[in-house]
Amino acid sequence: MGFHSNLQSLKCFSFVFLFVLASCSFPSTNVVAKEHLVSNQNEYIKAVKQVSAGDTIVLADGVWKNFEIVFKGQGSKDAPITLKAQTPGKVILSGQSNLRIAGKYLVVSGLVFKDGYTPTGEVISFRRNKDDLAYHSRVTQVVIDNFSNPEKFEQDKWVVMYGKHNRFDHSNLVGKKNAGVTMAVRLNTKESQQNHHRIDHNYFGPRPVLGSNGGETLRIGTSHYSLTDSFTTIENNYFDRCNGEVEIISNKSGKNKILNNVFFESRGTLTLRHGNGNLVEGNVFFGNGVDHTGGIRVINKDQVIRNNYMEGLTGYRFGSGFTIMNGVPNSKINRYHQVDNALIENNSIVNVDHIHFAAGSDAERSAAPVNSKFQNNLVIHDKDTDGISIFDDISGIQFDGNIVSQQTKPKIESGFTPTQVTMKRADNGLLYPVDSALKNAGASADLTLVKKSEIGASYYPKAEPDVAFDSGKTVSLKPAENVLFNAIKNANSGDTLLLEDGDYDVAKVIKLRKTITIKAVNKGKATLLPSRSTFVDINDFGNLKLDGLIIDAKQAPDSAGNTLLRTSRLPMQRNYRLIIQNSVITNLNKNHSFHFFDAGYRSFADYINISNSKFSEITGDILRLNKETDDLGIYNAEYIRLTGNEFKNVEGAVAKVYRGGTDESTFGPHYLVSKNVINNVGMGSRNKDKASVKLHGVQVTDLSSNKFLNSAPVVIEHTVGEPVTKVVGNIFDKTKGPSIVELRVKGPHTAQVSNNQVL
Amino acid sequence: MGFHSNLQSLKCFSFVFLFVLASCSFPSTNVVAKEHLVSNQNEYIKAVKQVSAGDTIVLADGVWKNFEIVFKGQGSKDAPITLKAQTPGKVILSGQSNLRIAGKYLVVSGLVFKDGYTPTGEVISFRRNKDDLAYHSRVTQVVIDNFSNPEKFEQDKWVVMYGKHNRFDHSNLVGKKNAGVTMAVRLNTKESQQNHHRIDHNYFGPRPVLGSNGGETLRIGTSHYSLTDSFTTIENNYFDRCNGEVEIISNKSGKNKILNNVFFESRGTLTLRHGNGNLVEGNVFFGNGVDHTGGIRVINKDQVIRNNYMEGLTGYRFGSGFTIMNGVPNSKINRYHQVDNALIENNSIVNVDHIHFAAGSDAERSAAPVNSKFQNNLVIHDKDTDGISIFDDISGIQFDGNIVSQQTKPKIESGFTPTQVTMKRADNGLLYPVDSALKNAGASADLTLVKKSEIGASYYPKAEPDVAFDSGKTVSLKPAENVLFNAIKNANSGDTLLLEDGDYDVAKVIKLRKTITIKAVNKGKATLLPSRSTFVDINDFGNLKLDGLIIDAKQAPDSAGNTLLRTSRLPMQRNYRLIIQNSVITNLNKNHSFHFFDAGYRSFADYINISNSKFSEITGDILRLNKETDDLGIYNAEYIRLTGNEFKNVEGAVAKVYRGGTDESTFGPHYLVSKNVINNVGMGSRNKDKASVKLHGVQVTDLSSNKFLNSAPVVIEHTVGEPVTKVVGNIFDKTKGPSIVELRVKGPHTAQVSNNQVL
Repeated sequence: MGFHSNLQSLKCFSFVFLFVLASCSFPSTNVVAKEHLVSNQNEYIKAVKQVSAGDTIVLADGVWKNFEIVFKGQGSKDAPITLKAQTPGKVILSGQSNLRIAGKYLVVSGLVFKDGYTPTGEVISFRRNKDDLAYHSRVTQVVIDNFSNPEKFEQDKWVVMYGKHNRFDHSNLVGKKNAGVTMAVRLNTKESQQNHHRIDHNYFGPRPVLGSNGGETLRIGTSHYSLTDSFTTIENNYFDRCNGEVEIISNKSGKNKILNNVFFESRGTLTLRHGNGNLVEGNVFFGNGVDHTGGIRVINKDQVIRNNYMEGLTGYRFGSGFTIMNGVPNSKINRYHQVDNALIENNSIVNVDHIHFAAGSDAERSAAPVNSKFQNNLVIHDKDTDGISIFDDISGIQFDGNIVSQQTKPKIESGFTPTQVTMKRADNGLLYPVDSALKNAGASADLTLVKKSEIGASYYPKAEPDVAFDSGKTVSLKPAENVLFNAIKNANSGDTLLLEDGDYDVAKVIKLRKTITIKAVNKGKATLLPSRSTFVDINDFGNLKLDGLIIDAKQAPDSAGNTLLRTSRLPMQRNYRLIIQNSVITNLNKNHSFHFFDAGYRSFADYINISNSKFSEITGDILRLNKETDDLGIYNAEYIRLTGNEFKNVEGAVAKVYRGGTDESTFGPHYLVSKNVINNVGMGSRNKDKASVKLHGVQVTDLSSNKFLNSAPVVIEHTVGEPVTKVVGNIFDKTKGPSIVELRVKGPHTAQVSNNQVL
Repeated sequence: MGFHSNLQSLKCFSFVFLFVLASCSFPSTNVVAKEHLVSNQNEYIKAVKQVSAGDTIVLADGVWKNFEIVFKGQGSKDAPITLKAQTPGKVILSGQSNLRIAGKYLVVSGLVFKDGYTPTGEVISFRRNKDDLAYHSRVTQVVIDNFSNPEKFEQDKWVVMYGKHNRFDHSNLVGKKNAGVTMAVRLNTKESQQNHHRIDHNYFGPRPVLGSNGGETLRIGTSHYSLTDSFTTIENNYFDRCNGEVEIISNKSGKNKILNNVFFESRGTLTLRHGNGNLVEGNVFFGNGVDHTGGIRVINKDQVIRNNYMEGLTGYRFGSGFTIMNGVPNSKINRYHQVDNALIENNSIVNVDHIHFAAGSDAERSAAPVNSKFQNNLVIHDKDTDGISIFDDISGIQFDGNIVSQQTKPKIESGFTPTQVTMKRADNGLLYPVDSALKNAGASADLTLVKKSEIGASYYPKAEPDVAFDSGKTVSLKPAENVLFNAIKNANSGDTLLLEDGDYDVAKVIKLRKTITIKAVNKGKATLLPSRSTFVDINDFGNLKLDGLIIDAKQAPDSAGNTLLRTSRLPMQRNYRLIIQNSVITNLNKNHSFHFFDAGYRSFADYINISNSKFSEITGDILRLNKETDDLGIYNAEYIRLTGNEFKNVEGAVAKVYRGGTDESTFGPHYLVSKNVINNVGMGSRNKDKASVKLHGVQVTDLSSNKFLNSAPVVIEHTVGEPVTKVVGNIFDKTKGPSIVELRVKGPHTAQVSNNQVL
């Protein structure tokens, strides 16, 4: 099929007749395969009506805006119908575009979706509508690059497989910012079950933390059809920082094979959530110590987990490096089926902080694992631990031939042999025991990893998603009219603006769309004097670091509700980062409710780090991260870290953080706060929460070594997800002790509260 | 000064030297007045550096984008420096533009600001910065047309007068959508006091309800400098539906003259808020029965209110047709000074529903008016009332020679002569008694009104602000793929889409930016089946009316938090209107928290009217108008009217309406609800408010003749502004009676609750 026409005119509609020799593999002689080069939508629509087996439609290079492609045809095994880019990677689908394919033996290749989003619920769909599906079809060498709905919680999926015997391969799915699983296999009708699809050699590129449920990368099936077999193979894919939510792969059907995939610094786990008889083999997980990196979570019957390699995973609870769950007796289809007949063998579990057996055991999840084997695994940790925790009866798991590193308190004695093991990294990048006598345990020496550089669409670069602070040039500034505003306008992302001593009037709101550091040459000698309601408004692509500055708001307008920093009132698709250090923020008090930072509805911070700074004379709150009151599991910041600051005479709270809803699919928010002085904070009459810190549904709280003086109490409300809360070593002087309540679970609160002094 | 150069090239920078004859009125001979035609910003900057007395800079016709004009110069009385449009109205300042003028004897004319907004806090400023003001300068024949910040609560002002002896005249200020007073006179430094400014012959065009404090049209002074005299004259202006908030003109300084202005259907009042010795004379107020139209509110010393005409005003309390306030003894400068030595005479008060004397009397405002006269006024009402209410001791007001219409219960007997008066409309458009014996009372027969057509910028049309429903063409539709989506895309604002019988799949979110009616040909025979998270997303310019439809959400996606209708997640600048009638809305229950209508943060409905419709099987709320939880006096809808509907099996509430904050500067929200059946509503476990209706800070509530069955209670929270609440004639069957609480005022609630049955 290799003939190409000369492209004499991109604007005309050209038929190229190729007389194919009988020696070709076509089933009949005298077949006429046509190649249609099309350069606009009308030409495409004409062409697709005329194609028959063996034909090719070529989309002319260029940007195709608002193109909802329907690719329908009846190819044959030996003569598929092809839709391809004139040059792979040079055909851009932008704006409101998508692709539906329907029929059989269809091939699509070389298309790039970017600079837009689908107007429907799917970008690439292996069906035209619910009655017209695709079979024996392949989508290959395509790219979907941040083709995300600008409204982050408008859900869609990027690739959805229906029908049977389809393949999605050698493609890049990168940077999905909006809610909805990146890729899904549906089994919702008989025509899509026992589908034998293949998903292979794809690059699942970085997906940022969504800050809600709905951020899985790959889902096979749904709970409703989960007792049906899918027979989907997922192999040789690379999952690069797929951090959307707690599940990276959510397997929800039976008889799938998940083979030889690499999971690189991805938060969450490969979860065998529903469905039986799946095989997980040859996968490699590198956590590199990144928070919440996990491995494999086992639920249901007849699962085989074999010859996988996990290293440097920090996740815990359902996000652990390795988890075997408890089930619910006679479980409803959407709850937890008991683990039965699991075979877990020859896995290497290296420097994995948590291995949980019978996890989730509670009054409902009371069915411990049965008829299962955990054998010949290698469980090695640098520290004096094996990471194992046990939550219920594990007599239904037979442990045998496992090697565990030498340690003080091995959790399980039988079936684990404590051994002094020296590990060495082999050529394939994995660690193995030096002692060859141990080779029967752990992953095989000939396990090979797919390389990031070798998978995905060959023509498309794999770019880093973020610009780091201080990675650009440094620009020196002196006080002058609009000097800061203009400097930021002219800066590149990553630049540092270095402020010489003096007073800087800031007469315009700075809408920040770059990564920018603003730093004083001499700490405390450069003073910013903003005169509008807001100093910096963080927009998409905006990240801000302030260092060594004084910000004095005495020239702010005399109106209520000013905010020194805030996020855009436009919907934000991008997560942002905010650092304040060594700075002084004062006189936010011209009128009431003058806040330091106000997060917008549906905005999301990867982190907000404030350290060694002083805040004083403020009529509002310091951090308002409480906009997601519709209780859908959404929240406004992943990490809030406050260290070594002083907050003095603040009428509102240091932080108001809200994470509502009943789902357990997020790791955050995290509130990590130590060594701060909180002096006369939260006592203003307009502070309705009557708290100096108000945390609702925060998942991880560490409040330690702070001093509270003459302030409103800390109020912590636990909701879902077994939050981890520590309140340790604080002094509460003329300040009530913390109020911690469980809003959903009955009984006393689960926080660790110790070594605090209430004076 | 009349020579114009031939414009040989718009792109070159041309100096035209005009040798002016000694016979001109210039102070010295041999003066060379130059005219500089400039066509880009660099040319302008060069030119303005070179101008001297008598010179003119001409901006070439065209769109000037992002142009922050600084017009600085030293003209003289006889030889001002002029900045003008090449053709008045053909020079458009768009994008991020503004104008600062500084110096003396400067004239600016013919400019139009539209399609953008100021990047600073002001559009036209009579100063360059706080040290460099304008004197003896004039801005005339300019237009600012909806030059509003897209973020509605980013405050700015359109025209701000500083300095002395300046004039702003014959200009149009139309359609300010964002917060901040439209025009202000500042007295913030000595150089701007006793200023003798003149503001005349301007067209203050329609300003929509802001839904918050900060929507005044004209303010002279601030409380801080209010005991200073301003000597500003405001005359012959036309205020056309200036509905921003409760004050149309907010006078906050002394010795101003407010003369011969017309107030047409403007909600709010001319308020003598601070400052003494002001004259209000010859003004005309036409309310035409529109809600909340008011007249004059008197506070402070030595005010003269003479020969004004008020007709058809409906406002009450501080928004009454005429109000004399109580003061605070030894008032702080920002509270209420006692009325002392007011002279109120010869005003016509015709069909004005409310005249309040000693208004606002309470524990704080205990100083009743003194040394004042109310004489020779004409108080006539068609109905059997004089509209007068008295709230405290009025012995300090001498009533004399007033004519009041014949009625059953005159409120004040001495000084008012009840008279059978026949009124007739005179040629000037005002009503006068037919009986000439009564001519000593009321406004003078020779009062003349400025005409809307004759004031403002002569070259600029005065357009209507809104497109009415059903004002366009009618388009018939039959079921087909995307038929509704495409029809709306192709429709004009005002069109009606008429749906023939059948089922309509709706596979895309409709982003509505037009006024559109969707109506069934046969009521209940056209069914819409939306399959995305949202059916219609109302954006700026979008207004929606649904009539006779069935909307069945059974095909909606299985995710939490769907909303059938909502407003844009983009910041909305425009108010919207929503009507649902004769329709059936059902099966919003695929997952939890599926709402019917969800208002966005900072969105604002002029009204939401729902009548004769049925809502059933809904897991969320019907109306969510509760997004402004930052307690800044902002809210999401002015009027909510529900009549003759049935709400059945709704897990959330019929309405959640939130208006927080402590200011009293809004009339709404209004919740007007009658003859509905509320059956099994509000009982869902996720309905945290545990209410079938939750009203917080609603200003006007009329809940009458509804039937509640098996539902959660009505919860009403009063906050500020003496809300008017009636709960009358309802049946509460297996439903708790309403909970009504005062959150700020001590004592029992002030609602009228009567004739309800709790079964």
